[in-house]
Amino acid sequence: MTLQHIKVIGFDADDTLWVNEPYFRDAEEKFCDLLEGYLPRHTINRELFAIEIANLPVYGYGIKAFMLSMVEAALKITGNKMPVDIISKILEIGKTQLDQPVEVLEGVEDVLQSLTNKYRLVVVTKGDLLDQEKKLTKSGLTKYFHHIEIVSEKRPDDYQKILRHLDVKADEFLMIGNSLKSDVLPILDIGGYGIHIPFHTTWEHEKVDVVIDDPKFRQAEHIIEILQYL
Amino acid sequence: MTLQHIKVIGFDADDTLWVNEPYFRDAEEKFCDLLEGYLPRHTINRELFAIEIANLPVYGYGIKAFMLSMVEAALKITGNKMPVDIISKILEIGKTQLDQPVEVLEGVEDVLQSLTNKYRLVVVTKGDLLDQEKKLTKSGLTKYFHHIEIVSEKRPDDYQKILRHLDVKADEFLMIGNSLKSDVLPILDIGGYGIHIPFHTTWEHEKVDVVIDDPKFRQAEHIIEILQYL
Repeated sequence: MTLQHIKVIGFDADDTLWVNEPYFRDAEEKFCDLLEGYLPRHTINRELFAIEIANLPVYGYGIKAFMLSMVEAALKITGNKMPVDIISKILEIGKTQLDQPVEVLEGVEDVLQSLTNKYRLVVVTKGDLLDQEKKLTKSGLTKYFHHIEIVSEKRPDDYQKILRHLDVKADEFLMIGNSLKSDVLPILDIGGYGIHIPFHTTWEHEKVDVVIDDPKFRQAEHIIEILQYL
Repeated sequence: MTLQHIKVIGFDADDTLWVNEPYFRDAEEKFCDLLEGYLPRHTINRELFAIEIANLPVYGYGIKAFMLSMVEAALKITGNKMPVDIISKILEIGKTQLDQPVEVLEGVEDVLQSLTNKYRLVVVTKGDLLDQEKKLTKSGLTKYFHHIEIVSEKRPDDYQKILRHLDVKADEFLMIGNSLKSDVLPILDIGGYGIHIPFHTTWEHEKVDVVIDDPKFRQAEHIIEILQYL
């Protein structure tokens, strides 16, 4: 694909620009440590995941939602019969996660540097605005981006809204991210371009099993490869 | 002031477009009910407020942040010695609040209707995106607004970012809201216009005691009055 006509490039944030999912996995491990006297670890994880998914429409994405779901899952797993200081420890797990350093993925800064003067670059993310702004600041990548687009979901409709907001047509927009489900399929669906760069860890909820046959789609192993199209 | 040259009008959401603060006061009352065996109600409220303020830089604004602060405050107030089902009840208080109906304030729809074709109208809010999107949908006011601007704070810098984002100059932007501190002072500070419409209940954190002497400022008692300037 030749992408000369692209005007705006949207970058997913977590696990596309910087490491994120491993911190959630780590928090889940600590959560299991707290509760392993009550249920087997894999059952704890399954309960937590079920509650997270049930809460998505109410809480949305991000660490605060995850913290509230951990509290709820702990109550459920222990039948409201645990020592209350487990709740304190859950809050600590979440606050530690919110305060995590930001590890920018390899090649990201080189790519942004080479694209920033040719395209309008935006961050498109489902996380919490405050949390993502902080991560962007900590990452040192702020200067490359025009702004952050926060969306509550990444469905085709949400991307339509972003395009209106950015005042560009679908085929002038390229989205780059690690989730086929959130970053690629919905943008192809509305006629935009998508490049998928998988990350080694993917949240269960973001997994899809598809083969994409679309001329506006490209698969990359590493972010540096996207420069060949731009 | 003549405001012929205004291009974009920003409306604060909570307690400007619809009722919000009374739901927080109501949740605080329920929180005190749960814990009144441990401390006097006004002390409970003070502890909760102190924890909310301490958590603002970490959690930001919105109901999820409030829920997490209630959980933390309950642990502190009871010295980690309460029955754990109090935590369940706190989660219920928050979920009820997230599911609250939206009560649009009197006159709001008339005002939006009369302005929507003459100006670009945006919602500018510090709340959670998901929560505010839902409220906007429930309010039936979506059709009047170009989009929602979510900010993590409403400081002069944050408004500068919004202006760049909207591609307008400060003196082409008018902000309308119930908080002098968040909706009026910072926008006047960067050279924009501000109209203050007080709401009967104001969160402690949003209170300021100032007399504003600025030609770009107007005080209104009711939202319908703003039409005389536009």
